[in-house]
Order: sequence, then structure tokens, then C-alpha cells
Amino acid sequence: MAAELRAARAHPGQAPLFESRLFPAEFGGRTAKVERLARRLAATAVERDQRGGSASAERQLLRDSGLLSLAIPQSFGGQGVAWPEIYHLVRYLAAVDSSLAHLFAFQHLQVATLLLFASIDQQRHWLTRTAQEQWFWGNASNGRDTRLKLTRRDEHYELNGVKSFCSGALGADALMVSAPRGHSSEERTFLVLPTQREGLAINDDWDGFGQRQTDSGTVQFENVFVDSSEILGPSGASPRSSLRSCLSQLVLTQLYLGNAQGALDAALHYTREQARAWPASGAPEARDEPFIQQRYGELWLQYRSAVPLAEAAAQRLQAAWEKPALTAAERGEVAVQVAEAKVVAARAALEITSQIFEAMGARATSSRYGFDRFWRNVRVHTLHDPIDYKVRDLGRWLLSGVPPSPSLYS
Amino acid sequence: MAAELRAARAHPGQAPLFESRLFPAEFGGRTAKVERLARRLAATAVERDQRGGSASAERQLLRDSGLLSLAIPQSFGGQGVAWPEIYHLVRYLAAVDSSLAHLFAFQHLQVATLLLFASIDQQRHWLTRTAQEQWFWGNASNGRDTRLKLTRRDEHYELNGVKSFCSGALGADALMVSAPRGHSSEERTFLVLPTQREGLAINDDWDGFGQRQTDSGTVQFENVFVDSSEILGPSGASPRSSLRSCLSQLVLTQLYLGNAQGALDAALHYTREQARAWPASGAPEARDEPFIQQRYGELWLQYRSAVPLAEAAAQRLQAAWEKPALTAAERGEVAVQVAEAKVVAARAALEITSQIFEAMGARATSSRYGFDRFWRNVRVHTLHDPIDYKVRDLGRWLLSGVPPSPSLYS
Amino acid sequence: MAAELRAARAHPGQAPLFESRLFPAEFGGRTAKVERLARRLAATAVERDQRGGSASAERQLLRDSGLLSLAIPQSFGGQGVAWPEIYHLVRYLAAVDSSLAHLFAFQHLQVATLLLFASIDQQRHWLTRTAQEQWFWGNASNGRDTRLKLTRRDEHYELNGVKSFCSGALGADALMVSAPRGHSSEERTFLVLPTQREGLAINDDWDGFGQRQTDSGTVQFENVFVDSSEILGPSGASPRSSLRSCLSQLVLTQLYLGNAQGALDAALHYTREQARAWPASGAPEARDEPFIQQRYGELWLQYRSAVPLAEAAAQRLQAAWEKPALTAAERGEVAVQVAEAKVVAARAALEITSQIFEAMGARATSSRYGFDRFWRNVRVHTLHDPIDYKVRDLGRWLLSGVPPSPSLYS
Amino acid sequence: MAAELRAARAHPGQAPLFESRLFPAEFGGRTAKVERLARRLAATAVERDQRGGSASAERQLLRDSGLLSLAIPQSFGGQGVAWPEIYHLVRYLAAVDSSLAHLFAFQHLQVATLLLFASIDQQRHWLTRTAQEQWFWGNASNGRDTRLKLTRRDEHYELNGVKSFCSGALGADALMVSAPRGHSSEERTFLVLPTQREGLAINDDWDGFGQRQTDSGTVQFENVFVDSSEILGPSGASPRSSLRSCLSQLVLTQLYLGNAQGALDAALHYTREQARAWPASGAPEARDEPFIQQRYGELWLQYRSAVPLAEAAAQRLQAAWEKPALTAAERGEVAVQVAEAKVVAARAALEITSQIFEAMGARATSSRYGFDRFWRNVRVHTLHDPIDYKVRDLGRWLLSGVPPSPSLYS
Repeated sequence: MAAELRAARAHPGQAPLFESRLFPAEFGGRTAKVERLARRLAATAVERDQRGGSASAERQLLRDSGLLSLAIPQSFGGQGVAWPEIYHLVRYLAAVDSSLAHLFAFQHLQVATLLLFASIDQQRHWLTRTAQEQWFWGNASNGRDTRLKLTRRDEHYELNGVKSFCSGALGADALMVSAPRGHSSEERTFLVLPTQREGLAINDDWDGFGQRQTDSGTVQFENVFVDSSEILGPSGASPRSSLRSCLSQLVLTQLYLGNAQGALDAALHYTREQARAWPASGAPEARDEPFIQQRYGELWLQYRSAVPLAEAAAQRLQAAWEKPALTAAERGEVAVQVAEAKVVAARAALEITSQIFEAMGARATSSRYGFDRFWRNVRVHTLHDPIDYKVRDLGRWLLSGVPPSPSLYS
Repeated sequence: MAAELRAARAHPGQAPLFESRLFPAEFGGRTAKVERLARRLAATAVERDQRGGSASAERQLLRDSGLLSLAIPQSFGGQGVAWPEIYHLVRYLAAVDSSLAHLFAFQHLQVATLLLFASIDQQRHWLTRTAQEQWFWGNASNGRDTRLKLTRRDEHYELNGVKSFCSGALGADALMVSAPRGHSSEERTFLVLPTQREGLAINDDWDGFGQRQTDSGTVQFENVFVDSSEILGPSGASPRSSLRSCLSQLVLTQLYLGNAQGALDAALHYTREQARAWPASGAPEARDEPFIQQRYGELWLQYRSAVPLAEAAAQRLQAAWEKPALTAAERGEVAVQVAEAKVVAARAALEITSQIFEAMGARATSSRYGFDRFWRNVRVHTLHDPIDYKVRDLGRWLLSGVPPSPSLYS
Repeated sequence: MAAELRAARAHPGQAPLFESRLFPAEFGGRTAKVERLARRLAATAVERDQRGGSASAERQLLRDSGLLSLAIPQSFGGQGVAWPEIYHLVRYLAAVDSSLAHLFAFQHLQVATLLLFASIDQQRHWLTRTAQEQWFWGNASNGRDTRLKLTRRDEHYELNGVKSFCSGALGADALMVSAPRGHSSEERTFLVLPTQREGLAINDDWDGFGQRQTDSGTVQFENVFVDSSEILGPSGASPRSSLRSCLSQLVLTQLYLGNAQGALDAALHYTREQARAWPASGAPEARDEPFIQQRYGELWLQYRSAVPLAEAAAQRLQAAWEKPALTAAERGEVAVQVAEAKVVAARAALEITSQIFEAMGARATSSRYGFDRFWRNVRVHTLHDPIDYKVRDLGRWLLSGVPPSPSLYS
Repeated sequence: MAAELRAARAHPGQAPLFESRLFPAEFGGRTAKVERLARRLAATAVERDQRGGSASAERQLLRDSGLLSLAIPQSFGGQGVAWPEIYHLVRYLAAVDSSLAHLFAFQHLQVATLLLFASIDQQRHWLTRTAQEQWFWGNASNGRDTRLKLTRRDEHYELNGVKSFCSGALGADALMVSAPRGHSSEERTFLVLPTQREGLAINDDWDGFGQRQTDSGTVQFENVFVDSSEILGPSGASPRSSLRSCLSQLVLTQLYLGNAQGALDAALHYTREQARAWPASGAPEARDEPFIQQRYGELWLQYRSAVPLAEAAAQRLQAAWEKPALTAAERGEVAVQVAEAKVVAARAALEITSQIFEAMGARATSSRYGFDRFWRNVRVHTLHDPIDYKVRDLGRWLLSGVPPSPSLYS
């Protein structure tokens, strides 16, 4: 709750939302704007988590912030911000409101998908409009759900079927859609659609117990017309285009770390201000108890172990992103670092968001604080794809030199 | 959800609620009755967890089951069942519905409090009525909350103030109340009150994010009359009467293990019947994946490490319970085993209820399954008192031979 | 060193070798004899660990103790002691001297092999002599080493090749030998040989960094004559005969637990008597430091989690052992419990033997104490067969109901 | 053994000692020289670990390498190399030979002590000679051992008593000595002595089970003359001079990481070239087993989590080192990062050096490989000062903002 309370008390000149000694939040010229947005989100984050459903007002805040065009190149009217900076911002917002940070991050992921898979004309068309009209993008491109079929009809195509886990689709202006091509779930066609297109039904049926306002429900397609020009391509399976999975995995990584940061911040405030010393401790205040200090030390070490790996992976990704062409080996180096970062962040976040309670005590479980939302968010989101195979991939790479295969998830 | 679904399909002659190979549920002549009760609870457990609030209909099921008098000696009209058997039953019910199991267990804890602290006349008076009228007991005896004051008024006493964490108070017939005596939070007077007593307000304000139907809200006392005969005593601080904390700590232990069991059972069913193999695994079904098998093996080992310690502690406690007098050393041996059992169970339950999701995958986070309730229950309840001091107590005992000091929590 | 020092000070009427509050050592009528043996081994255990090589004098102590015939049925002149009691004794000796305990335990394992695989005449012949002449048995039956070949020659057989990991062979009177039958490493013929047989060379070449006096080197066979009567059989793959792997795995389990016990005992003594409080702790003595108490609490919980599983598995094994016939399902239940016990014990022992040092400090690393031998013993011996597959087997059994397949190791 | 074997096969143009993909070893113009030194050390490291005692020939290799003057400013004839580079080199040597890397690192620590505590004249005198004559420095400055007394005698001083843990003293040219000043073990006088000084007896009595060739035995002082000019000063307790503890703690950190690296490298080679697939795995080779790949993935993640923290701490330390004056807050920031780095490295190294064996199997425990030396080195050296208080310090800093107090160890 700490961040919410501080957000509610917010006024110009006040202390930053998170203690800068621990969680520096410096975004150059965008700092004030970002901070303002974060305070607005923080003020209602606990309540909205409990309510669930779509956060239309807060999505509007994101649009109004002007930050939806961060990843769009300046040549298309965007801001051309590098990935490490975008990721840092995602992490910061996730510390406040993990669902909205998710929507925000996936916006940039769809932009990246256009930049990786679309022709230059398609990029210009869709990204220029996105920048001009503050479009919000959703997706219907969950690769493991192969129920959506794309069929050729003379001059155009038609979509029929359904997709699940369509984060951000509800309330979006445009959708990034993928449909299987042939039999392997790995081969697929990407295409873009305005959400107003006839035959498209975007359902408000997301009911995950975490990341509750990510609008990650189903989208149904009934004879949905697709113009050839809406089909991205040639996508191909180039090492560079396969950076999309790396980009996406690092988005997840930021969301984990943001939740960990939010949890640590909230818990530290609670322990300092509300927790009572345990009688057997002999300590005057909870914050003086050796075991509570130890607990925070341990959780901090987990957080701190994860952050540099995430930052190094983002730098490595950016370097690869900036190369016009990429060898498979270079792509593999990115994938290795991304895998490292993701696994360590996921585990740190799971531990931190569960163990903060030991340092706060029973009274901190009141629903009015909403402290459990950090764990619920992380628990749900760390299941996006299994950690186990990332660890295995790293071991295989160590033993054989073969990096993780480019796939939907690595 | 597995248990709920199976409960809903329940009919005579069907398979047990939990796979007996893994979680044997044998309660002698009470087995059928217990199983029936568990199925009724299971049918609505997920839905009621989401709703929260008081489960009056299900509390009535507990009354109707005739099981509320298990701990009452036969000489007072009860069933005189030994603690190990009661604990086993609590664990079984907790696997289905941790909140109702909590209320059920606390009933027996209040009965034990009478048996340990009350005069023989008081025991006869209150326990006979409890057995005859299927009374449900609540409590207002949280020792760390010292805001309730007991004041002498000529012939009687008066209570003023408030108590928090009053599990089971709402909807109860009688309350076990404690008020501080003097300045130490350790010294306190126990007394009993009918819940109809004037000036007593039992609030429906429990809002923990787990154990949501334990009615663990606040009770307010405004000039509440207390007759001298309602004050239990002489309580004293005998080694035997201090078994109350041991009894209580083993109740917690059962609730942790029950949630762990419920989580494992539900997850195994889900993995067998609904999970999909991860593409990179090459396995035909999720249940064939080495990493999923490994995960279950690991979780099972945690569960299995905890169960024998809990059972041994219950046996040791029962042996102490049966002794008319107890030395401090004998009491210390019970406390050591109880501490061991509780810590191992708490940790196992936290890990299991969080990690089952790795073996089920993202789709298992839908709220309709309610699989997160196991973790929420355990997370909330393991904060009852800090694990850290139990571990420290064990180390001190190893180094010095001094067992945990009798206290509210050890 | 604590046990050694106490052994050296030993005289009648003194305190037991291990604090009985923590590690009860009660062996009925054999207690005094066992204690005497343990004290003799303890007096030189550290020095012998550093020296390595064969411990012929101490092997003689084992012979003289009369305990080598424990597992031999009374009808063959032995003592007919049940496995749980033998295991307890192995654990106790392993706390003092893990190598000699290993040799001692493997003696009983070879006896069991005769009881499971040999004809009744073979049993009478070999076991009666073993009991009468205090024979020590070694083995050359490592199943993974398939370099030894058994060839039929008219009326007799001939052995050629080599076996590694032949624990106890050096200095033994008789050897239990196995040679592959056909192509699978699982199918093999067991046979027995006197160690004096011509062509047999038992090498003093064991150089493991732990379990240093187990004489686990190689045995070479050059045209070694084998009489048909020396070939055990019909061995067969009955569920009952496959109990051999279970027996063997529980021997390992005892050795792990014994080392853990020895390490805990030695460390507790050191911390009490020699460790200094860390200045920043503010505590008068090391034993008063909360973090040191916590450390011991944690290590104790690991030990205590493992012991009941080992004891339950031994009881279950004994029950199976006593059945004249065993179904595959009953055998599977033993295997499941053995797997549980072994994994938990192995991990507890690895952690305990490494972490005791945190509670003792830098000066405890002097070689004169030999405190590292516990970890070295456990580290070497827990590699006997991989833990990972035991965990996987448990998970598979949970998911499918199929118990671990009978094999050399499960 | 891998590194040793490769060292033995070494010739110009061959592959680097460690796989550069995993453990890059780039030291600018010094790379070839360092590599040559490392290969010489590697060739005998296993054998010397088993022998223990002083490694005079290898100490001479260090002298001959010209690398003993790395930390000495160019103005005094040294090489003026920054700490991050020195640390990287220490880590690299520790991967090969942790004892010699320890001696090498402590050389630079004594140089730093002069730079922090000595007057400019003293620095010039001692450091110029050190650079010119390739002096090797040892120390007798263990702060917890307060048995050494410095007494004023008219114009000079006299030392009497003993110091333990005097790494590098045996075979050194000069000693950095500290003696308590007043009653607190924290206040002490530093002074320097040539090892030839009369009354000084440097004993070859180090018998730790790890770091076996660090010559960390005792030094005895009997009426040892100390000239006033040999007493360093004014030392003072300035934030900058207290960087010595930070420097020293990061030396430890490098030694842990070097052992972890050496262990991982050796194990990967063994698994690739010598390990056999476990029959139940169904894999053709050990390196194809999912559980072995997973194990390496896990160990790698631990290593990789630790490295960036160590590198960031070294950078932060270097920045502080370069400031002519330092505030307590700036010093505190260094101390926080050093504490983070040390704890994570220590734990990673303990786990890695123990768990590599799971991925190699039983045959890898042969003493001829010496694979256990990594664990023994780390186990001994991580006891230098307790990890627990570092973690506590971090938690206290998080809760209160107060950084670790400058002390002998933080």
C-alpha cells in the first residue's frame, strides 16, 4: 500500500514514489511525465486489482501520456527510444501497477513486431498512424493456441476461429494477429487488423487470479476479412526477426522485476511504519529485529542478483537490434543472456513477493493493503512459458555450445 | 478444482475424495460421516473462497455432523477422541476447505482450553451444554492484542475494549475470551461468555486474503458483564496447562498440511487430465515430461518430510495430555517436537501451494479453478506467529538443552 | 573431533558417545558392545581418514565384535536381527567412522544377497561358515561395470576381466561377485568366491576423496575357476529378490544420516566449547548468537525430516522381507518409501556436513579436527547413483501410479 | 583436472586455458604473460594441493612474472593498474590455483594498505623497493587475534606475542603487521617489517583443509625491534582509509568466483569427455541427459548472478579509490555493493563446487582429479568472516539507510 498512500499524498516537490537510493527512477526528459502517470496509476491500483476487468480510464492515461510511441522510430513520427530505456520504464510502472505496465509493454512489442516482420510500406502505414493517433495495440497471437485459421479467398484472406490470452485486445485500436501456417505451431503468419473489423468479437472474459487488468481474454473471429496488404511479410525466420521472442521474454522479465521492486518497497514501508516487534526478539521495533533485517537482506540479494542480468541482456539485445543483419551465433548470444535474465528474475520475484509477509506479520494480510497482488501477478505471469526449459537450454548450451533454438519462447 | 468436481459427482460407492494411495483417509467408524461432510464442503469451496464472509450454512453442516464434540470427554457427553485422530481429521477437512477446517479445529481448541484451565465444575457446566446443544465456540483471545480490559466491579467483572483475530466468533454460541492480567502480554485471564451477552458486538470485518471464511474479525466489548463463575481458574502456568500452545500450534500444522495435500491432489488431477505437454519436451503428455515428474517428486518429498514430524508430535502431545502431571522437561520435549513439525509443515505448504502451478501451466490460473486459494490460505496462516523464532528456539535447545519457553506461541 | 576426544577420554560409566537427548543409541543387549566398538573406532577415525588405505586393525575389531553375523538367521548360527535394528546400528557407527560402517553394512548386504538369491543349500553352506568363522565379505558386483565376463567351460565356469568399486574386497574372506548375463547391464549372474581363489587379484587402489577406508578398489580376474555350485540361483527377478536394491539403498541412507549425525554432534561440541562470539553479534558466547542458533535449528530440521522417513522405510522393508512372497505392488511400495528416504537423507547430509562450518568459524578448518571428512564422505557416497532419477521416479509414480522399476539401484 | 591436462598440453597457438565463450580472459598487453603463468601453475595444482605446505617454486613464478607490482603507482615504479583489472586477474588465477591466487591478491592488499595508511615518505620507501626488488609481502595482521602486543621502549617499539592466519608470511620479504591499540579489537596500529628482523619466527604450521598453500600459519614475535619510522601513520579512521576492508572483501569475492569458475570448467570437460549416460535416462551421452543439462543450467545461473555484482562493486570501489577524499555516505555505498557481491559469490561458489559432482558421477571422486579442492578452498575461505552479518547489514541498511559500519570486515 505504501506506494498508493504516497501517490495519494502526492504533490509537486515531494519525495519520489520509490526510494531513489534503492530503486532509482531516472528517465531523462521524461521523468516528470512518467512519475505523474505512475502516481495516477498508484492511487487506484489496489482497488482495481480487486475489481479486475478492463481499466479503460487508466488505458486512457497511458494514451494521454504520449508514451505509447516510444518504440516507434522518429522517421515514423515516434520517439525512437532504445529498448533498455523502455524496459526500465516498464519495470518502474510494473512496480506500481503490473497490469497496466503489461499493456504498456505489449504495445511496444507489437510495434517491434511490425518493425521486424512488416515491409517498409506496412511499417510506414501502421506506425505513422499509431504515432499520430495514439493508437493502443492489442494482440491475438498466442502461438500455442492454434485454433485460428487463415484461409485464402481469391484476392483476400479470411480468419475463423478463436485465440486465447489476447492481452490488450479489449479496448485496443489495432490487433497483431498470428495464425498457424502449416502444421507446426512454430510456423505462423502475422497480420494486422483494426479492432473495428466486422466479425471480430473481443471478449471481456479474462479471469486469471493475477495480472487481472491485462484484458487477456479471448478473441473470436467469424469470417473476418483480411486484405493481402494486412499480412506482414516476408516475415521469414531470420535471426534478426527471431529477436521478437527475445524482446518479449525481456518484457516478462521487467514485469517480474517490477513486481519484486513494488513488493520490496511496500514491505519496507510497512515494516518501518506499522509492524510491531515480536516479543521474543527483545528488539524495540520490528525494524531492529535481526531476523527481519536478515530477511530483507536475503530478499534484496535476490532482487539485486536479477537486475544486472536483465540490464545486460537488454544492452545485448539493443546491440543486436541495431545491426542490420545478425548471424545465428550473435542471435544465440542474445538468447542466452535473455534466458539467464528471465529465470533469475522469475525466481527472485516469486520468492520476494511471497516472503515479504514474513517481515510484515499477520496484520499485513488484510485485503485493504492488497500486498498479495504482487505474488499473484508474478505467479500468473511466470507461467507464460516454463522456466524449466530455459534452464535446460542454458545447460545444453554450456555442454555443447548450441544456443537456445529460436522459437516462440526463446 | 479436482476435489470439487469429484465432490459434485459424488454418489455412494464412488472413489474417495482423495486418492487413498497418497492421502489415506481412514477415521474408523466416522469415515463415512466425515467423507459426506467433506464432499458437501468441497462442492462450494472455491465459490465461497471467492465470496469470503461467513459460511453460516457450512458451519451448520459442521454442527449437524456431530463432530463438534469430538474432544469433549465422554463423561461430559462428548466423544473423547484422542488428539492424533482429531488432527488427522482437521488435516483432511483442510485439504477441502481450509477455512471451515480452521473453525472446526478451533472448536476443539476451546474445548481443550476448558479442560486445561477451568475448574471441574466449569468444565462440567460448559462442556456438557456444548455436547448436548452442538454448541459452536469462537474465541476472543488473541494474546498479542492487549486492548481488552477486565475490571473488577464488586461481585462481578466487566469487559471493555476490543479484540482482533477472533476466529469463529461470528455465529458462535460461546466465546473463549482472554484479557491481560497485569503488564505482561504473557499473563492473562481466560473466561467464557455466551455470545448473546449484552454489550458484545461481533463484527463481520475479517478481510484477510486467505482463510477467508474463518470469521476472524474483531469483537467489541462495551461494559460487558462477567460473572465470577465465568472466569476460568485457577489457570496457573503449570507445564500441563501450557500444553494449550502446543495444541494450538499443531492445529496450525494440520491446516498447513491439509492445504498442501489439497494443492497436490488438485494439481495432480489437473496435470493428468488437462495439462498439455510443452512442445520442447518431446513428451506425448504433460505427465510424461521429466521436469514435471521431477517437480512433483520434489513437492511430494516436502510433503512427506513434514507428515511424520506432525504425526510424531501429535503422539507425543497425546502422551503428555494423558499424564495427570507433567514436568517442565516433559513439556519441553513436546514443545520441541511441535516446533519441528510446525516449521517443516509451514515451509512445505508454502512451497507446494506456489509451485504446483509450474506443473499445471498458465491456463490453471483461471479464477474458476481457485487453485490460488491454497497458497493464500497458507500464506496468511503461516504468519500466525513467526517461524524464525521457532527455528531459533530449536537451535538454542540443541546448544544449551533449554527447550522453548512456554508462551502464547510455543 | 568431539567424538574422538570423548572416545579417548572414555572409561566405564562415562557419558555416551553422542548426546542421547539428540541421538539416542539403544541397541538392547548389544548396547555396551556396540558402544565399546564405536569408541575404539572413534579414537583413530580422523587420523585414519587422512591416511586412507585399508584399516585392517579396525576390520579386525569388527570381526571381534561378533556383530558380523547380525543378519544371518539363527538357523544358520547367526543372530537373526531385523533390518531396522541393523540399520540403526549402521547409522550409529557411521557417525563415528563412515568407512568402517560402510564395510560393516556391506557385510550384511552380502548376507542378504545370499538369502535372496542362493538356494537353501548354498545359504546353509556359506552362511554357516560365515557365522562360525567370523567371515568378512566383500563384493565385486558393481552392476554398471560390465567388464567382467563369466564363461562356461564344460563342467565349470571361468571369470575374466575386472570390477571397480569393490567395497570391502581387500581383506575379505569371501566375495559376492556379479557378471553380466547377455547384453543388458540389468541381467546378471551372482556367484560367490573365497578370496584365496587363484587368479584373483584384489588391488589396494581405492583413491576416492571420501569414504577413504572402504577398500573400494578394483578386483582383477584372470582365468578364475568358478564351480557350478558357487553360482547362486535360481536368482530370478522376483519382486522379493529385487528387494536387494532396496536393502542396499537403505544402507546408503544410513551412511548419509550417520555422517549428518556425526557432523552435527561434532559441531555442537565445538561451538559450545571452542567457538568465539562474533564481535558484531553483541552476544557473550557463540552459542548465544541468534544466527548461530538459527543455523543449528535449520540443520536440525533437515536431519529430523530425514530420520522418520528412513525409519519408516526400514519398517516397510522388514515387513516385505518377512513375507514369503511379495507382489510387484507391495515391492513397489517399499521402493517408493526407500526412494523418499534416500533422497531426503542425501540432501540433508550434504547440507549439514557443509554448513556446520558456518556455526564453528574459520579455526575449525584445521586438518587436525578432520571436520571436513563428513562432507567428503557424503559427497562421495551420494554419487553412488543419481538422486535425480529417484525424484523423477517419485513424480512418475504420483502421476501414473507406477512405482520405480526394480533395477540395480531402485 | 581439465585445466591441468590442457596446461600440460600447452604450446603456442593453442586454445585458451578456459573456454573464452564462458570465461573470457583478456588482460590487454598482459594476456600472454598471465596465460603463461596460469599454465605453469595449472600443471601442478592438483598435486600441490594434496601435498600442502609452502609452494616456493610457484611463489617464485609469481615474482618472475613481474605482476607483483601491479597495484603500485607508476610514480613509485609500479604499474598503477586499476582494481577491477587486478581483481579479474585474481579470479582467473584462482580458477587454476586458489592458493597462489590468494598470495598474489594479498600482495596487492598489502600494497594498498601502505597507500591508505602510510605517510607519503613511507609509501615511497617501501613501495619503490617492492617494485625494484620484486618483493613479496606477507601479513601478520589478523585483527581478531589480539595476542600480539606493541610496547613503546624509549625511541623505538617492541613486539611480543603471536599472530595466526598470517597468509603469505612464510617466504615473504616484508610483513604488514597490526597490533591492537587500547582495548577494542577494532583499533590497531599498522606497521611494516622486513621478514629478516631478529626475533621474528614465521612458522610453517598452516593446516587448513583448503587453501592449503597459502602459508597462513602463525608468526611469533619475541622482543622484535620496531623503528618509529616503521609504524604507519597517521592511519586514522577516515572513510577513505577504511576502504581497506572493502578491498579485502573483494579479494575474497574473486577467490570464490575463481574457484567456481575452475570447478565449472573442470566439470564441463569431464562431463563432455568422460561421464557416462545414466541407463535410466535413455540418453546416448551424459551431456544429453535433461537432468544434467538442468544441473549445469542451475549452476551457471548462480555463477552468472554473482559475477556482475562483483564487477559492479569493483567499479564502485575504484571510483571511491580515485577520490582524494570520501564521505562516509560514499564509503557506505561501496560497502553495500561489496557486501552484496561477497555474499552472492560465496554462496554460488559453495553450491557450485559441491554440486558439480552430480553432473560427473562417482568416478569423478578419484583423488587423482582433485575436483574436491574447489569445495575445500571455498569452504575454508568463506569462513573468513561470517556471511550472516553481511546479510543482516544489508537488511538494516534497507530498513534504516545506515550502511555497514566500517570495521575489519565491512
